[in-house]
Amino acid sequence: MGVRHDSAADAQHQGDPRPVGRGRLGARPGRARPDRLGQPGRLPQAAQGRAVSAAARLDELGLTLPAVPAPAGAYVPALRQGDLVYTSGQLPLVDGALPVTGKVGGAVDPERAKAAARTCALNAIAAAAEAAGGLDNIVRVVKVTGFVASEPSFTGQPGVINGASELLGEVFGDAGRHARSAVGVAVLPMDSPVEVELVVAVR
Amino acid sequence: MGVRHDSAADAQHQGDPRPVGRGRLGARPGRARPDRLGQPGRLPQAAQGRAVSAAARLDELGLTLPAVPAPAGAYVPALRQGDLVYTSGQLPLVDGALPVTGKVGGAVDPERAKAAARTCALNAIAAAAEAAGGLDNIVRVVKVTGFVASEPSFTGQPGVINGASELLGEVFGDAGRHARSAVGVAVLPMDSPVEVELVVAVR
Amino acid sequence: MGVRHDSAADAQHQGDPRPVGRGRLGARPGRARPDRLGQPGRLPQAAQGRAVSAAARLDELGLTLPAVPAPAGAYVPALRQGDLVYTSGQLPLVDGALPVTGKVGGAVDPERAKAAARTCALNAIAAAAEAAGGLDNIVRVVKVTGFVASEPSFTGQPGVINGASELLGEVFGDAGRHARSAVGVAVLPMDSPVEVELVVAVR
Repeated sequence: MGVRHDSAADAQHQGDPRPVGRGRLGARPGRARPDRLGQPGRLPQAAQGRAVSAAARLDELGLTLPAVPAPAGAYVPALRQGDLVYTSGQLPLVDGALPVTGKVGGAVDPERAKAAARTCALNAIAAAAEAAGGLDNIVRVVKVTGFVASEPSFTGQPGVINGASELLGEVFGDAGRHARSAVGVAVLPMDSPVEVELVVAVR
Repeated sequence: MGVRHDSAADAQHQGDPRPVGRGRLGARPGRARPDRLGQPGRLPQAAQGRAVSAAARLDELGLTLPAVPAPAGAYVPALRQGDLVYTSGQLPLVDGALPVTGKVGGAVDPERAKAAARTCALNAIAAAAEAAGGLDNIVRVVKVTGFVASEPSFTGQPGVINGASELLGEVFGDAGRHARSAVGVAVLPMDSPVEVELVVAVR
Repeated sequence: MGVRHDSAADAQHQGDPRPVGRGRLGARPGRARPDRLGQPGRLPQAAQGRAVSAAARLDELGLTLPAVPAPAGAYVPALRQGDLVYTSGQLPLVDGALPVTGKVGGAVDPERAKAAARTCALNAIAAAAEAAGGLDNIVRVVKVTGFVASEPSFTGQPGVINGASELLGEVFGDAGRHARSAVGVAVLPMDSPVEVELVVAVR
């Protein structure tokens, strides 16, 4: 069912800036947490409006980064080249399985697909963070490409991919604003309703 | 109906290098015009065969850059990262509406789709120019990805996306030559027949 | 029928580090061969685990780079920007023709499509090598996007695009590991079953 905010869990952890192990999706909770939180070197980044608090925002959202899903083929989940990280297309896998399959506008409701797109984005953040050497090294989101497995009559791809875009905004703030394409494809691997890839800038 | 050359308008403006307000698509005419036309610093760029005259070529084509269409979701029309600008996927919107909808090879004729692809490219140039701080800052077009909403029997995607590629060549000359992928997808946002995204190099 | 290993041809050429003219797909055999094989400057690259032997590995595979297929439209096969080369989407053309057409899961068997993806990748390597000024200048493969023309019921896109990924691994070794997206589209140019584009890092 994708990712959701757990306000009870939030309340429970006030005053603890780095709770671990409470995320619903986090197979390896806290694994990709930045290891430089609170170091003096952080201030200049804050001044840039950067994702200083990406880890904190994940906490506030009741999320932890999941284990990076194993690639479905002969490739890697994400790769750094220069100051960019390219992620592979991410499916909305939760613990290795797809909670929903089928075409949007057919078996899959747009709202469920939007929640799945949010899960895709969380998986993509995890993959990017791993390739970047930590969530903290992601400077900004650059480009999102969202593929929606669609019945030919379904034309609401932007609303579905907003599930990914909105999570990126919630986690990275202004640094999460991105260019984006959303298209409706015939079918996706494992009959997933959605697949999302990212290009992010790193340091 | 996309973009078209208006030779009457052209004739009318000979001798005036910066006419405004005559483009059929220009909601904010001249808005993205370079502000350094004719400055001494332009000559070295001319020597590089760059888009010195992108604005002039738009004029010759009877075009002005349109207002950048508002994103259909939680993203921005284009984003600069380093010396590249990534545009979002652009639909052939004219004044906020699609002049043609449906699948190519079905309700939509390939020639109309080609004209729509030309409009997509004009919108993408506008988005890229805005992110680059002016049309003049676009050094070259790098990559075009063209999605054509296609009946499964329609295999002429390259001819459709040529509408975008040819406009880029007309506007940027040699600097408009690009790598490109064209694919036939099931359906696009708002039932658009075509969607085009660009990667351009900027300074 | 795509690309295949010819062990007889291999045996025949042992001791000859740069055989030419025996590749089944090589319209211009040896054309993109590195011209610095064996130069002293190669050792540091070997230490980096780079594609020192990309040409040699192609030889071992019984392959030569084909002539770069002519673009199907107003664009170029590949383009260098900074230290990246973007290739255009490559079809599995052999001597200018598609050995197989149709949708995977329909007229086209997944195994034939996988072989076609391998041919796409070989064509893409050739295009990238030409833009990079030689195969030897390709430092690593960064991103692969694979489009599979699919019946809506076919969900094995990753297995098909493995044909491309595996060839990249065979040719470039560790430097061939890449991020990747694989999607199932409605239809591709010329009714091709598969189309592959690359981003590679060059020097």
